[in-house]
Amino acid sequence: MESTTQRYLSFVDLMGLEQRYRAAFVNSLSGFKSVALIGTTNNLKQTNLAIFNSLIHIGANPPYIGFISRPDSVDRHTLSNIIETGFYTINHIHEEIYQQAHQTSARYDKDVSEFDATKLTADFKKGFVAPFVKESHIQLGVQFKERINITTNNTVLVIGQINQVYFPNNCLCEDGFLDIEKAKSITCSGLDSYHSTSRLSRLKYAKPNIETAHAKLGYIEK
Amino acid sequence: MESTTQRYLSFVDLMGLEQRYRAAFVNSLSGFKSVALIGTTNNLKQTNLAIFNSLIHIGANPPYIGFISRPDSVDRHTLSNIIETGFYTINHIHEEIYQQAHQTSARYDKDVSEFDATKLTADFKKGFVAPFVKESHIQLGVQFKERINITTNNTVLVIGQINQVYFPNNCLCEDGFLDIEKAKSITCSGLDSYHSTSRLSRLKYAKPNIETAHAKLGYIEK
Repeated sequence: MESTTQRYLSFVDLMGLEQRYRAAFVNSLSGFKSVALIGTTNNLKQTNLAIFNSLIHIGANPPYIGFISRPDSVDRHTLSNIIETGFYTINHIHEEIYQQAHQTSARYDKDVSEFDATKLTADFKKGFVAPFVKESHIQLGVQFKERINITTNNTVLVIGQINQVYFPNNCLCEDGFLDIEKAKSITCSGLDSYHSTSRLSRLKYAKPNIETAHAKLGYIEK
Repeated sequence: MESTTQRYLSFVDLMGLEQRYRAAFVNSLSGFKSVALIGTTNNLKQTNLAIFNSLIHIGANPPYIGFISRPDSVDRHTLSNIIETGFYTINHIHEEIYQQAHQTSARYDKDVSEFDATKLTADFKKGFVAPFVKESHIQLGVQFKERINITTNNTVLVIGQINQVYFPNNCLCEDGFLDIEKAKSITCSGLDSYHSTSRLSRLKYAKPNIETAHAKLGYIEK
């Protein structure tokens, strides 16, 4: 990386970019993102499936997960269905279905189900109103908890409680870590780039190195 | 994946798990995450550096980025510094520095800089109060905009405006997409697992396939 030129853009430079160019650029800056399919239904049993790259861990106790919804986009069917029924599913995406998953972002009419349009299979599990994606290896059944309006740019943070988790048993590690790479889950960057992963390592819980931490203060414990 | 057993956990099952086991498990469910170092300083010029795996794209126009802060964790120095000075840096992590980056999560005293403790280099750029990480290939200078309290579990969504971007020029594509894989940025999963990536592909902007979309409605355009 040392041989390449470093380049700089200011806020004013960013605001001067053409809109789609800026969207592609700024969407790249937040790093690799989770990518998943959110399945919903309305009270008329019309199903909807949409890809989201804005999932975020909110908390483990209780198990809460969030995502960002943009009212001006195709996400709007997802949000209105969630508010109507109170439930939704979050389904991990793997290499074999990411192209179908991406296709759910097309602007289909409200009476067209993205399940039909993309040939992904709606999986209704007992006691849960929203459809899971049958082809997905890790499936979450989520109950809507809180809608937080982000007034600065008219987006919405949707928070839900994880009520159901389906996962491959051989991906669960001894300490509770679920090996989503082994389950073939993928990641994305920007608006349209999909990536598989290779583990570098799992690192131990970090503790202060007394010697390093105190060196600066002038006393080193030996 | 077909040959493995699918396993199921309910909300009650999740709540019954031992705390650290549950944290490891639930942190895996949101998929692959961005991972970056946030650099700050307080008004006494004491620097702080902390790893975050909760970055989230908020919007491109204006360029806004968010992250989740947990008041009960080591993140607290980051949040208090951001509120005190109004500025912070977000620095991508690559393979050569991820172990040092992870080490910043140790609970150092407030008077110990994680820059010193981890041997990462504070890079003060002209006209910006918060320190960048010199070793990082993609560096963002961010201005604090909004703090949103997530009352359901006492976490905070911190939103900032991207005022400065430094990046390798050879990673910028024609359409504005920044190739963060080429810049060696990595991703993480769970609490402690780090991964490099391999691009599957970039997909085109999705448009409805008329034939598929209307097939279900009984009329197919030819």
